[in-house]
Amino acid sequence: MALVNEHFLKLPNNYLFADIAKKVKVFRTMNPRTDVITLGVGDVTQPLCPAVREAMCRAVEEMGTKEGFHGYGPEEGYDFLREAILKHNFLPRGVHLDADEIFINDGAKSDTGNIQELVRWDNSISVTDPIYPVYIDSNVMIGRAGTIEDGRWSNVFYIPCTAENNFIPQIPKQRVDIIYLCYPNNPTGTTLTKKQLRQWVNYALHNDALIFFDAAYEAYIQDDDVPHSIYEIKGARKCAIEFHSFSKTAGFTGLRCGYTVVPHEVTASTLNGERIHLNQLWYRRQCTKFNGTSYVTQRGAEATFSPEGREQIKQTIDYYMENARHMLDVLTGLGVEVYGGHNAPYLWMRTPNGSTSWRFFEEMLYGAHVVCTPGVGFGPSGEGYVRLTAFNSHEQTEIALDRLSKWLR
Amino acid sequence: MALVNEHFLKLPNNYLFADIAKKVKVFRTMNPRTDVITLGVGDVTQPLCPAVREAMCRAVEEMGTKEGFHGYGPEEGYDFLREAILKHNFLPRGVHLDADEIFINDGAKSDTGNIQELVRWDNSISVTDPIYPVYIDSNVMIGRAGTIEDGRWSNVFYIPCTAENNFIPQIPKQRVDIIYLCYPNNPTGTTLTKKQLRQWVNYALHNDALIFFDAAYEAYIQDDDVPHSIYEIKGARKCAIEFHSFSKTAGFTGLRCGYTVVPHEVTASTLNGERIHLNQLWYRRQCTKFNGTSYVTQRGAEATFSPEGREQIKQTIDYYMENARHMLDVLTGLGVEVYGGHNAPYLWMRTPNGSTSWRFFEEMLYGAHVVCTPGVGFGPSGEGYVRLTAFNSHEQTEIALDRLSKWLR
Repeated sequence: MALVNEHFLKLPNNYLFADIAKKVKVFRTMNPRTDVITLGVGDVTQPLCPAVREAMCRAVEEMGTKEGFHGYGPEEGYDFLREAILKHNFLPRGVHLDADEIFINDGAKSDTGNIQELVRWDNSISVTDPIYPVYIDSNVMIGRAGTIEDGRWSNVFYIPCTAENNFIPQIPKQRVDIIYLCYPNNPTGTTLTKKQLRQWVNYALHNDALIFFDAAYEAYIQDDDVPHSIYEIKGARKCAIEFHSFSKTAGFTGLRCGYTVVPHEVTASTLNGERIHLNQLWYRRQCTKFNGTSYVTQRGAEATFSPEGREQIKQTIDYYMENARHMLDVLTGLGVEVYGGHNAPYLWMRTPNGSTSWRFFEEMLYGAHVVCTPGVGFGPSGEGYVRLTAFNSHEQTEIALDRLSKWLR
Repeated sequence: MALVNEHFLKLPNNYLFADIAKKVKVFRTMNPRTDVITLGVGDVTQPLCPAVREAMCRAVEEMGTKEGFHGYGPEEGYDFLREAILKHNFLPRGVHLDADEIFINDGAKSDTGNIQELVRWDNSISVTDPIYPVYIDSNVMIGRAGTIEDGRWSNVFYIPCTAENNFIPQIPKQRVDIIYLCYPNNPTGTTLTKKQLRQWVNYALHNDALIFFDAAYEAYIQDDDVPHSIYEIKGARKCAIEFHSFSKTAGFTGLRCGYTVVPHEVTASTLNGERIHLNQLWYRRQCTKFNGTSYVTQRGAEATFSPEGREQIKQTIDYYMENARHMLDVLTGLGVEVYGGHNAPYLWMRTPNGSTSWRFFEEMLYGAHVVCTPGVGFGPSGEGYVRLTAFNSHEQTEIALDRLSKWLR
């Protein structure tokens, strides 16, 4: 008799964003003439830039010729893209990596979800709280997270990040085996300085822990002392795996491309104390369960590093960051407590009247016709907050801010 | 201390095709002037058809406009593609499915590897032998396959398919929980009739087992009594999950698109006997660990169902099947024992002199400069066989056959 993996049944039935979509749909059905503006889902809205489009169409045409046809590519990605990433995203920051430490994928969500396959099922895990739900959910599915009570998983060590500690996670006093960090942070939009991140690397080295570092939003960093990669910190190659994405950097949410960095030095231990190189294990994993990213998409990603491509994607990021600045100005002017938005496309807002995240979400939807994301959907410490994104157009963002101004006043 | 998932360490270090590539590279380095022809790797060679290219370029251009930009798509795929699949691949065969039973993915390898996440780690598994290595390897990584000795995993029940039983797998006398079937078969190129497949469905229903059915090569079927989908068999919706791919159907090996069918009726049991619908579980899995397939690729896949697209991909399949027929003729004429090739792009050849698969692989590489795939790489019952593929060009296939004729004579 085939038995089901019962760990799946512990998960709440719906994914956060599916819940939100349902509630928005109900509102729209009840109020068909009201125009709802979403500052909720973290999806981009601006068109794909010309350099990427040209490269992709060229690649499609190439695939129509005998000489230019590309079948199965390397599971780890084409060298042209891996080399471009090294040259443009790491070398300028003094980070020297080899091409075979870069694994091209179909987006950071897949690999932040899959990476847990490399470690034993009973390692302890730790997350800053609130956090992107995939880290925990992917561990729940394999049984590593334990059971849930009051929104907390029994085998997950939560590190609260709230206004009270200025969103700086405190280094755990106890040992944990695996630490998920995401900076610039989703959902709070806050960052760590090099000095602060160094404490985490030192903790990991000292405790033989692994850091899974999600850098999906690094392209939005404006301040000089905020690291773009954990490998800017000495020793991080021994303890950290890092995730990057073209989704928010270049509007690839609908194209699917990112990459994972697994340095040669990073290891984990067997029960007998033998050190195992995770680079080889990840390569084996990818060769077995993944067949590479579309050649056409990889050519598109490569084009983001051409002089025109770099200029064009910078313009789009500036566009979103202009939204973020404007949102910060207006909301702060209204006396609302709001964080993030300086080095990230996310703003993290305390619910003004002390109401719960979901209650405020509904009040805002019905009162201002603006959609946010309830903070508690990202973890217990997100209660009493909502996330706003800077990814809408200037025009829609402006209208949303007008509505919020009237409604919050 | 972070502990590694030691199940990974049980796997042989290299993937079969990486081993072959290495041996071919050694030969080429030693014989730089000799032209090697590969009939080994199962990758297509013919250009992407015009209908697909046009649709993809149109989609790329669309993504460059405000109105036509597509960000995150549905994790389960766009309805335009799911509906086209239902209409063209299932309805004409009398199979009625709902769109939400179809999950678009980035290729069958991913999902045939990931599907095992839905079932308990201690279910017993069964494979026909020889078989595509991903089924077993993905189970090894989670510990379900046990340990390996003499090329056999302790918790895997192997069902031999050899010339001795005409490549018809015998229904197990014992109970197994999960059965992997792939028809038309990779690597042997053999098929099951409806009657033969019905016995498997009945076995699964009777024993409350699940069938994971890989139909990646169904587009190559020529005979009427060979089912294109397991759902042509009554009762299969209750016990089978099916995998399809555009890779071999339309030359998408470098683009990455396929789909998995999880019918509403298919369930597995909890330890307490509660029936759990796997459709919902798979949806939850995909929402958590996958972010959909490229919009551009999905538009390309949709174009394979247009009148021009269907005609164009049929031409390419006919082209490969002409190779297969020719290969069968020549090899049979040479007195070689060879199977498959009628309803599949694969030929399965007994090594003429009784030598092992790897030994014959090397003899053929050094004697005829033609690359095959050693059968034992697909499992113990593959020993003494090699796989040949019909995916090369007419010209190269012709030269390879000439070389083999001279060498085998």
